[in-house]
Amino acid sequence: MQPMKLGQLQTPCLVLDEAKLEGNAARMREHLDKLGVRLRLHVKTAKSIDVARRVLRSPDNPITVSTLKEAEYFFSHGLRDILYAVGLAPNKLEHVTQLRSRGAQLSVILDNVEVARSVAARARATKDRIPVLIEIDCDGHRSGIVPGDPALLEIGRTLNEGGCELRGVMTHAGDSYNKDTVDGIKAMAAQERDAVVNSAKALRAAGLLCPVVSVGSTPTATYAEDLTGVTEVRAGVFVFFDLVMAGLNVCAVDDIAASVLGSVIGHQRDKGWIIVDAGWMAMSRDRGTAKQKIDQGYGIVCDARGEPYPELIMADANQEHGILALRPGARGPLPDLPVGTLVRILPNHACATGAQHSAYQVVRGKSDEIRATWSRISGW
Amino acid sequence: MQPMKLGQLQTPCLVLDEAKLEGNAARMREHLDKLGVRLRLHVKTAKSIDVARRVLRSPDNPITVSTLKEAEYFFSHGLRDILYAVGLAPNKLEHVTQLRSRGAQLSVILDNVEVARSVAARARATKDRIPVLIEIDCDGHRSGIVPGDPALLEIGRTLNEGGCELRGVMTHAGDSYNKDTVDGIKAMAAQERDAVVNSAKALRAAGLLCPVVSVGSTPTATYAEDLTGVTEVRAGVFVFFDLVMAGLNVCAVDDIAASVLGSVIGHQRDKGWIIVDAGWMAMSRDRGTAKQKIDQGYGIVCDARGEPYPELIMADANQEHGILALRPGARGPLPDLPVGTLVRILPNHACATGAQHSAYQVVRGKSDEIRATWSRISGW
Repeated sequence: MQPMKLGQLQTPCLVLDEAKLEGNAARMREHLDKLGVRLRLHVKTAKSIDVARRVLRSPDNPITVSTLKEAEYFFSHGLRDILYAVGLAPNKLEHVTQLRSRGAQLSVILDNVEVARSVAARARATKDRIPVLIEIDCDGHRSGIVPGDPALLEIGRTLNEGGCELRGVMTHAGDSYNKDTVDGIKAMAAQERDAVVNSAKALRAAGLLCPVVSVGSTPTATYAEDLTGVTEVRAGVFVFFDLVMAGLNVCAVDDIAASVLGSVIGHQRDKGWIIVDAGWMAMSRDRGTAKQKIDQGYGIVCDARGEPYPELIMADANQEHGILALRPGARGPLPDLPVGTLVRILPNHACATGAQHSAYQVVRGKSDEIRATWSRISGW
Repeated sequence: MQPMKLGQLQTPCLVLDEAKLEGNAARMREHLDKLGVRLRLHVKTAKSIDVARRVLRSPDNPITVSTLKEAEYFFSHGLRDILYAVGLAPNKLEHVTQLRSRGAQLSVILDNVEVARSVAARARATKDRIPVLIEIDCDGHRSGIVPGDPALLEIGRTLNEGGCELRGVMTHAGDSYNKDTVDGIKAMAAQERDAVVNSAKALRAAGLLCPVVSVGSTPTATYAEDLTGVTEVRAGVFVFFDLVMAGLNVCAVDDIAASVLGSVIGHQRDKGWIIVDAGWMAMSRDRGTAKQKIDQGYGIVCDARGEPYPELIMADANQEHGILALRPGARGPLPDLPVGTLVRILPNHACATGAQHSAYQVVRGKSDEIRATWSRISGW
C-alpha cells in the first residue's frame, strides 16, 4: 500500500515533524547531562507514548504527569516512575492508592498541612508509604510554600511521622514565561534552584530526609547554568516548542515541531483575508503571544512543507474558521493561496493546541509522506 | 445502587443542569414559534445526542453541524436533515458524498465559484444533486458574498446548471457578539435578515429557485422581532448559555446550564488566592468576557449547588490550576473554602469549555445527585 500523503488528509488535523522532535529532545538531554541532572519528562504537552518513547532513553526513565489519567495511560504503557505534579485534591487519594497497589511508583505533591494529614492517614490505613514532595513557591506565580515559611517543617514532620515517605521538594518557575530577556530567564533559573535547594537544607537541618530536589520549566531548563543541589528537571514543552517559547528566545521558529494543517476555503479579497477551515477549535483559544513583543495572533502560517509565508498570521479565529492576514503594518503582498491550498499553522502554545486533537500525523522534514499516526489522550 | 453524588466525582469535570437546559430550550422554541420560523439547532455547542434530544421536538427536526464528524455522529443517532455550515473544502467532498449515499440529507455551503464548480462536478459524477446554500456576508465579520455582489448570481447559475440543487442562502451575524446594547443586537437581527432576504430575491429575480433563507446566531435569534422572509434560524449556544451571552444581556447568569466542577487544593492567603484543580484545560483558554464591560476572568465561581459566591472569579489559570480571587476592586471578604471544597465555575464560552470534556455529569437544580452521564464527541 502506498503511504498516505498530507494532501489526502481531511483538514484540520495536527501534524508533527519527527525530525524536529528528535532534535529538540537531543538538545535538552545533552544540556541536562552537562549540568549533571536527570530529566523527568513532563508528558502533559504531548500526552502520547510514541512521543515519550522518542524522548526517553529507557522505560525506566521518570516522568511527570498533570492528571491521573496521564498516570494511568503511561503506566499502562510500561512507565512506572511517575510524579503527579498538581497539588493533590483529597478526592483523588483513592485513585492514587489504586495506581500504587497495581505497581505504579506514583508520587504526589502538596503544600499544606491539611492535605499532608489526609495523605498520612491514607498511608497508615493502607500500609503504603505514599511518597510525597512538598511544593515550594519560588516566584509567587501559583502554589507552594514560600521559602522560609515555618509551614515547611510542619508539613515535613506531619508526613514523616504520619507514615508517608517524605521524598523531597519541588518547584515550578512559571514566572519564567514572563521574562523578556535571556538574562532574566537565567536569573529565574538560579532563583528556582535556590528556592528548592534552601528548602531541602532546612528540612535536612531539622533531621528530615530530602533525597529529591526537583525544578522545572522549559525556559529555565534551557538556560540554567548551574544546578548544584538539584537532582532532577521537569520540562515538557521543549519536545514540540511553540511561538511563546520562540518569543522568549528559548527556541527558533524553525524548531517548532507541531502544527495544524488546514485548507483554504475562501477569500475576502477587499479585506486581505484568506479563510481556512482551522479555527480556534483546532488551534485552541490560547493567545499567549498577545503579551509578548510580537503578537502572532493565533499562529504563524506556513506552506504545506512547513516554510513560513512572510508576515502571514492567523489574525482571528472562529470555532471552525481561521482568518489569515498579513501582520499589522506588513507591506505585503498577500500570498496567492487558491481555494484548496493546504497550509500549516504554528501554534502559540503546544500544550493547548495539542489538547484539541486526538492524534498526530507524523511527517519528517519537508516530505509530505505520513510516516505514522500517533494517538494522544485527553481529559481526566 | 445508590445514585452517585457530585462529591463522589473526581475533579475537574463538566456538570450540566438539566432543568436549565430545558428552560433555555423551551424559551427559544417558543420565541421562534411566535416568529413563524423553524429552529435548525446548531449542535456544535453540546455535541451530544442526549442534549439534542432535549431540545428537538422530533428526530425529523433539522440540525446544523460545524464538522463532518458531528454529521457522522448525529446521523448515526437517527438525525438526517443536516446542514454543514462551514464553507466546504474540496478535500471533504468525498466524505460528503459518502454520507449522502448512506442516506444523510446533508447540505453544504460555499461562497465562491471555484468550490461551486467542484461541487457541481462531483454532483454530475455521482448523479447526486448535492444541495448547496450560498453563504452571504451580512456584517463583514468572516466569510460570504457581500449583498449586491454579482458573484451571487454567477455561483447560483454554476450550481444550478452544473447539476446541484441550489437550496438557498444562509448567513451568520457573528458581529452580534460585539454589540453592547440590546438595541444594537435587534438592529443586527434586522440587518442579518435583510442580507439573506434580499439575496434570495436577487436569485429568484434571475429565475433561480431559493427555497431556504437561513439566519443564525444566539443573540440575534433571541432578540429578532420580525423574520419575514426567513425560513429557518440556526442557533446553538442558547442550550447552555455562558458568561459572554450574559454580558450581552442575552441571558441571565442564572440561566447558565453548564459549569466545571473543581476542588480546592490549596491557598496563598497573603495574596487572597484560592487554588483549585480546574485550570484552562478544564475551562478552555477562552477569555471572551475580556472585551466586555465586566471581565469575568476564566469564570464566575459558585458553590457546589451552583450559587455564585459574591465577587469571586477564576482570576487566572494554568493548565491544571485555577487561581480564584475576588474581582479587582471588590471589598471582600474572601469566602472561607477549605481544602477539598467543591466549587462550580461558570464558563465564558460554552462551546469552548464543552470541547475540553468528553461527558456531562447531569444534575437537576440544587440537588447533588448525578442523574445521568451523557457523552459528547470532539475532533474532526
